[in-house]
Amino acid sequence: MFLYEKNFELQKRKAMESLKEALEKRLVDEDIIPLLEKINSLPNYFTTSSCSGRITVMQMPEFGDKVNAEWLGKWHREVSLEEVLSAVKKHDSGMLWFMLHSPIIHVSAKTLEDAVELLNLAVNCGFKHSNIKSISHKKLVVEIRSTERMDVPLGANGGLWVGEEYIAKIVDLANAQLRRAKEKLKRLEKEIEYLD
Amino acid sequence: MFLYEKNFELQKRKAMESLKEALEKRLVDEDIIPLLEKINSLPNYFTTSSCSGRITVMQMPEFGDKVNAEWLGKWHREVSLEEVLSAVKKHDSGMLWFMLHSPIIHVSAKTLEDAVELLNLAVNCGFKHSNIKSISHKKLVVEIRSTERMDVPLGANGGLWVGEEYIAKIVDLANAQLRRAKEKLKRLEKEIEYLD
Repeated sequence: MFLYEKNFELQKRKAMESLKEALEKRLVDEDIIPLLEKINSLPNYFTTSSCSGRITVMQMPEFGDKVNAEWLGKWHREVSLEEVLSAVKKHDSGMLWFMLHSPIIHVSAKTLEDAVELLNLAVNCGFKHSNIKSISHKKLVVEIRSTERMDVPLGANGGLWVGEEYIAKIVDLANAQLRRAKEKLKRLEKEIEYLD
Repeated sequence: MFLYEKNFELQKRKAMESLKEALEKRLVDEDIIPLLEKINSLPNYFTTSSCSGRITVMQMPEFGDKVNAEWLGKWHREVSLEEVLSAVKKHDSGMLWFMLHSPIIHVSAKTLEDAVELLNLAVNCGFKHSNIKSISHKKLVVEIRSTERMDVPLGANGGLWVGEEYIAKIVDLANAQLRRAKEKLKRLEKEIEYLD
């Protein structure tokens, strides 16, 4: 037996304090705030972290070493080719990647039944990679996650493998995928009320 | 309350029959078979589907339409540049993608405790995206999943956006990622015995 249900109220209080601080410091992606507020207004859930989806340019000192990755550009919205090119220009070492990550929201649920209800709702709203991420005595965490994703190698060691024309194509694709993912967030924001 | 525990033995019997058929028809990736056998020998688990990781070239008639995607090349092992180029040559319509997907194994567990034990073991073996995929009256499914992934657009409508030199680079990267993912499978195969 896991004790997460017993710890729910205490954990929720802590999480709500952290969220309040993060909101004051403007560390939360603006377009996901209404959804977070709706989830947190439900008695049996609270959010612990979130990202509204993003387009990034980063370099990694060594292959797969995401810990020491360096962000050259990071946007939680659609981007212009110029923005991406000016981030790409900063590349000077390691592997250079262009990435699109879909939204991720971590939500603690009070009971297993609550977790499964939210999971199924999220899947139905198009967040097909949603899952129960972890269960421990402290927390039962649902991960709301969509399928949109791009991981495109652009170059290495200061050199580029592709031209501007190619970058323009993948920026268009990433913008379209981000738009689609953000529409799903809106849909979830509407549907989440039915969990109450 | 979910009834998956009550249905476990029946579901396992069915799954083992399906697996036997799939093995006879050689539909299961060879290098994952020893791991599947070890999992299925444990009384509280059974596998329902698996992929040992793959490199693919595919075209999609319309953006995001994975249902009507057409595989131009698909390998559960490292590939040569020549193999990828000959798959790329078949491209004639839609969007052309080169992809690397890490291994995925779906495992039914008898109890929530069993599921969490397997989940934590998988995460510790490097399968950082492992999760509990679904819970219903019929089944409680753990998804064992790693982080390696590449989704690289190569062209559209019969035309290519990149040259052979770029494709050579991403083939090298994909091979390295696949190798790393398959090493994790070996590690899991060793560690899985401790679940008993």
